[in-house]
Amino acid sequence: MNLVLIYKDDFIDGNNIIIGGRRFRHILQIHKANVGKELTVGLLNGEIGTGKIIELNSDSIKIQVNLNTPPPSPLPLTLIVSLPRPKTLKKVLHIATCLGIKKIYLIESWKVEKSYWQSPVLEEKSVNEHLILGLEQAKDTILPEVTIKRRFKPFIEDEIPQIIEGSLPIVAHPDKNSETNSNNNLPITLAIGPEAGFTEYEICMFKQHHFQTFSLGCRILRVEFAIPAIISKLT
Amino acid sequence: MNLVLIYKDDFIDGNNIIIGGRRFRHILQIHKANVGKELTVGLLNGEIGTGKIIELNSDSIKIQVNLNTPPPSPLPLTLIVSLPRPKTLKKVLHIATCLGIKKIYLIESWKVEKSYWQSPVLEEKSVNEHLILGLEQAKDTILPEVTIKRRFKPFIEDEIPQIIEGSLPIVAHPDKNSETNSNNNLPITLAIGPEAGFTEYEICMFKQHHFQTFSLGCRILRVEFAIPAIISKLT
Repeated sequence: MNLVLIYKDDFIDGNNIIIGGRRFRHILQIHKANVGKELTVGLLNGEIGTGKIIELNSDSIKIQVNLNTPPPSPLPLTLIVSLPRPKTLKKVLHIATCLGIKKIYLIESWKVEKSYWQSPVLEEKSVNEHLILGLEQAKDTILPEVTIKRRFKPFIEDEIPQIIEGSLPIVAHPDKNSETNSNNNLPITLAIGPEAGFTEYEICMFKQHHFQTFSLGCRILRVEFAIPAIISKLT
Repeated sequence: MNLVLIYKDDFIDGNNIIIGGRRFRHILQIHKANVGKELTVGLLNGEIGTGKIIELNSDSIKIQVNLNTPPPSPLPLTLIVSLPRPKTLKKVLHIATCLGIKKIYLIESWKVEKSYWQSPVLEEKSVNEHLILGLEQAKDTILPEVTIKRRFKPFIEDEIPQIIEGSLPIVAHPDKNSETNSNNNLPITLAIGPEAGFTEYEICMFKQHHFQTFSLGCRILRVEFAIPAIISKLT
């Protein structure tokens, strides 16, 4: 927790907050908090600043907050990722948030196991928890928007045209030669398939919608590592 | 397991191997193996090829092997990383191996918790297990060399000059302006500190030894994600 994310509901007056639970325990155990210590805090979807601990109780902490800095700029990149297995999904939400991505689409693709759609990690509460951990890690406050699309074809045919408008659309595809020329200043729409890749049909559909293909080479990375590697190359 | 890593000891004659244990279970459960199926195999520190299943027993599998392709080129980068906590170390060994790094130094730095040096993950057997999982993921066969250095100052003063010889030495340092000009074809020596960064003294020592600093920006990534992000940017 490099930033303590706070909420409007935490405020007891204009400048002071009281927090308990997970954040309280983290501040106590990891930050070894005591009265007078200053922490970096940020208001969800708002500004960043400092929080000075003014009262330490057995199950809560009172912090005087001074918010004065805008959050870091978002990464001008929309991420479309085929739904990974639940354990990987948590990591994907984390790293996407840490990188500053603000729009994430989780989509179906042929090689997505059907059972993944039943995972409790996909529930809004769980998704938000992982996004918030990512914001706290990356010292950001702007919650990404996660959209779930269970049908590939209607998503590509009906929604992709609007999503990619004004951006450079790229689909990551292992073991293929890269065709991407990313030397421009457009935002990027990046689609990443499962570790085994999108099917030829799916890649063809992306190409029909003006996506260029991009490959990191013959080494296959797990999705959570492919995301920072590919994005770092493209941006 | 995108490649089944095999060992000289697995061979029962010039072309056939018998394997059991973890690899046997993985081939059976994940690859849904049956007789006749072909898998990608690679000999540790040797060539890559195909393996055709010719016999399936209750606790082992017989595979006819044809090795004919060299492993992928190594990444021309030496990684120096301050020892992370044990859980993160596993991920660091994994991603470094997946990226094709063949020389990894785990070093002391001020912000490394002393207890990390007692972790069983640091034992040679455990380190090798994680390197091997990385090779299997990345379809590689060349085992990286991991060297452990428990004292920062003698490492920098006595060993760094030889390690960086003929390379571009770079130290990753969050929240600092990047000075790096990586547009050349030299191999890279990359030092990455703990999430909280190297100390000013440590950075100063690196700079005295001709290291340039490099930053990904103000967002702080976990070490295991910073590695692919930074390396992707630099190579």
